[in-house]
Amino acid sequence: MTSQDIAASRPAELGDELTAETQTALERAQASHRHEALFSERAYNIKQSAVRDVFDISIQPGLVSLAGGSPSLSKLPLELVAETASRVIVEHGMEALHYGGGKGTLALRELICEIMAEEGIVGASAEDVVVTTGSQSAQDIAAKIFCNPGDVVLVEDPTYVGALNTFEAYQVQVEPVFMDDDGLIPEHLESRIAELEAEGKRIKLLYTIPSFNNPSGITLAAERRQRIVDICSAHNILVLEDNPYGMLRFDGHPLPPLRADNPDDVIYCGSFSKIFSPGVRLGWALVPRHLYRRFYLAAEAVVLCPSTLNQLIVTEFFRAFDWRGYLAESRATYAERCSAMLEALAEHFPPEATWTTPDGGFFVWVTLPEGIDTYPLLYQAIEAGVVFIPGAAFTPSDGTSSKLRLAFSGVTPEQIREGVRRLAPVVRSAVEARRG
Amino acid sequence: MTSQDIAASRPAELGDELTAETQTALERAQASHRHEALFSERAYNIKQSAVRDVFDISIQPGLVSLAGGSPSLSKLPLELVAETASRVIVEHGMEALHYGGGKGTLALRELICEIMAEEGIVGASAEDVVVTTGSQSAQDIAAKIFCNPGDVVLVEDPTYVGALNTFEAYQVQVEPVFMDDDGLIPEHLESRIAELEAEGKRIKLLYTIPSFNNPSGITLAAERRQRIVDICSAHNILVLEDNPYGMLRFDGHPLPPLRADNPDDVIYCGSFSKIFSPGVRLGWALVPRHLYRRFYLAAEAVVLCPSTLNQLIVTEFFRAFDWRGYLAESRATYAERCSAMLEALAEHFPPEATWTTPDGGFFVWVTLPEGIDTYPLLYQAIEAGVVFIPGAAFTPSDGTSSKLRLAFSGVTPEQIREGVRRLAPVVRSAVEARRG
Repeated sequence: MTSQDIAASRPAELGDELTAETQTALERAQASHRHEALFSERAYNIKQSAVRDVFDISIQPGLVSLAGGSPSLSKLPLELVAETASRVIVEHGMEALHYGGGKGTLALRELICEIMAEEGIVGASAEDVVVTTGSQSAQDIAAKIFCNPGDVVLVEDPTYVGALNTFEAYQVQVEPVFMDDDGLIPEHLESRIAELEAEGKRIKLLYTIPSFNNPSGITLAAERRQRIVDICSAHNILVLEDNPYGMLRFDGHPLPPLRADNPDDVIYCGSFSKIFSPGVRLGWALVPRHLYRRFYLAAEAVVLCPSTLNQLIVTEFFRAFDWRGYLAESRATYAERCSAMLEALAEHFPPEATWTTPDGGFFVWVTLPEGIDTYPLLYQAIEAGVVFIPGAAFTPSDGTSSKLRLAFSGVTPEQIREGVRRLAPVVRSAVEARRG
Repeated sequence: MTSQDIAASRPAELGDELTAETQTALERAQASHRHEALFSERAYNIKQSAVRDVFDISIQPGLVSLAGGSPSLSKLPLELVAETASRVIVEHGMEALHYGGGKGTLALRELICEIMAEEGIVGASAEDVVVTTGSQSAQDIAAKIFCNPGDVVLVEDPTYVGALNTFEAYQVQVEPVFMDDDGLIPEHLESRIAELEAEGKRIKLLYTIPSFNNPSGITLAAERRQRIVDICSAHNILVLEDNPYGMLRFDGHPLPPLRADNPDDVIYCGSFSKIFSPGVRLGWALVPRHLYRRFYLAAEAVVLCPSTLNQLIVTEFFRAFDWRGYLAESRATYAERCSAMLEALAEHFPPEATWTTPDGGFFVWVTLPEGIDTYPLLYQAIEAGVVFIPGAAFTPSDGTSSKLRLAFSGVTPEQIREGVRRLAPVVRSAVEARRG
């Protein structure tokens, strides 16, 4: 599919349009089929993710992708990963290639506790860890075991589009809470809770990415962290803390996660995707002990167990590898890429555009003047040879957005500069059209 | 935990007891915790799987496990698997260790079509395949997108306990349909549908394992296959065909799956767990085209994508390996093990016991005289050094069962003989107690 095809076939819903010409025919076939009556109510809430769709486009040769939040793997010692995988299969093949326990292997859960200790969660027990098929599936499980249709999950505005898709698949009412440059605003969280409770809503979870929020790059200030948990706790709302980027703080000193001092009130989600490899699809949840059993049984009901092979490879690799040194190197890589992006934005973007200055993570969040819809700009950007994710993807609200997410994580400084250079005229003409 | 501990702490629900002493304390803590109010209604339907629990016990040294349905991996060429994994990482690491598409890689989906062609599904398109994290997760997705709470899923009686857990997690009403030695009884399927429709129930799916049913080993006769699909189709019920063992027919000639001639009415689930390795956690669904999009989006919302690393390893391994020859060898292995079990049963078990004679797969299903509850026998069996799965696990009905599942797949003929020899006195004394 060319970008012309894409631009020519724009239906109403974000994301769908990107593979639309075949889908339209499919939807017609589906709507007229007698099986249409079989879908569950929740099936209608399961949507295409704009990020995943742009993922398909962004692997086209020649395009600079500032879209996907992919980690940089270029400094990963592939020979050592390969040797580890080979050794695991030869020496432990009868374990690695068989079924394992539903919680994950004890050795990996112990390694996970060491990793969490590095970022400030001290003394966590392997008994409270569930290894999951990526942290995405931990979010799926949380929604599954806590949310009835119509229950409320509070989220940052903006927040991770994959979590929105997961929650909506369980017919959850997702309610945004405002952020400022220091992250979630406690006062707004309180007032939003009060309003929703006054409406008789059952609020089950606060889903938050406190460090280097996806997509905004904003970090919840240290002095707000306990207050956010306390507010939730006072209203019997669980905190679902998603922290894939926490160890990738540029200055090398991760802020203590919300979970650190709140073992009973926070379900913590971690991931190997950003600190090692997304291709192994391994994440984890650190679950309050009184919630652990139902959490792990729900995980088991979906996948029986996480991939034993990948669990053994990751465990052995981390044991053989200076992963702390690698993380330090990764932080330097991402810091350099972030700087390259901020400099390129300052050089090429019009003065009407503003953007965040993240302390870590993968993303810069750009705000254009109000009234500009960044969605159609994506098609112009593809024409210009660059991809980003329009802001509307990252909010449960309907309507347009004048924001856009730029990922600096998976591309070199040269590619970043070239991508921003290509994107700038698209942005400038939108700003000028708005001005004029 | 020792088997004494287990026997001393028997609560009402199957499976729970097996790790009961810690769980009782946990359940108390949970029940009294303010977070108890946060669980969704479906959370209360998520249960411990007896199979998974016995899995934990059966890895104790010295026990002969006739419990878990594990494949035999002893003839797998580990060196070749290791070389393949190593080569994939060194040569394709940037793809293997990154995110992939939500449908799975095209190369693996094409391989899957070749595999399905071997068992009689000819001409399937890779465009209709979704690679899943084990076929268990394909069942989860089917339940998610088709079943509202209270909807009915029809299942064979007995059926796979993992599927029961998955369906019950979505508050599905699971309704058993009787089998005889030729599998599902069409007349009973029809009358059960009529009864349920008369009650106003919405029947969404028939979940069936037509070849070498887990746990019974029974195969749906060729002449009944189309009739079963036609009955469902006439009532707008989708068939969810689970066929992990289909290629493991001892005589080397798989029966055509229900899907073969019914591309529009059957969702077919396949798996690499039994023909290669459960540790890679890769299965697939072949989905009618008009249902494909919602199916794959729901899969994506849970895991983003199946493990890219494992997909590449499996694809490259199958391309480098005489997998058809390996399957022939596997069939011979399982046939030999099945024979060893049938012979040992004939030699050691009392005449009051009967059992199935499977044509393939992993299991023999033993029936003891009515009135015997095989559940307490498990504790005596553990004392005697052998593990099986009590029959009650495999039916949605409450109440006791005089059946038990014996798996011959993952143990040698010597272990099988020893296991049956250990189990026989337990069975004999139960039969004698019943007789006396």
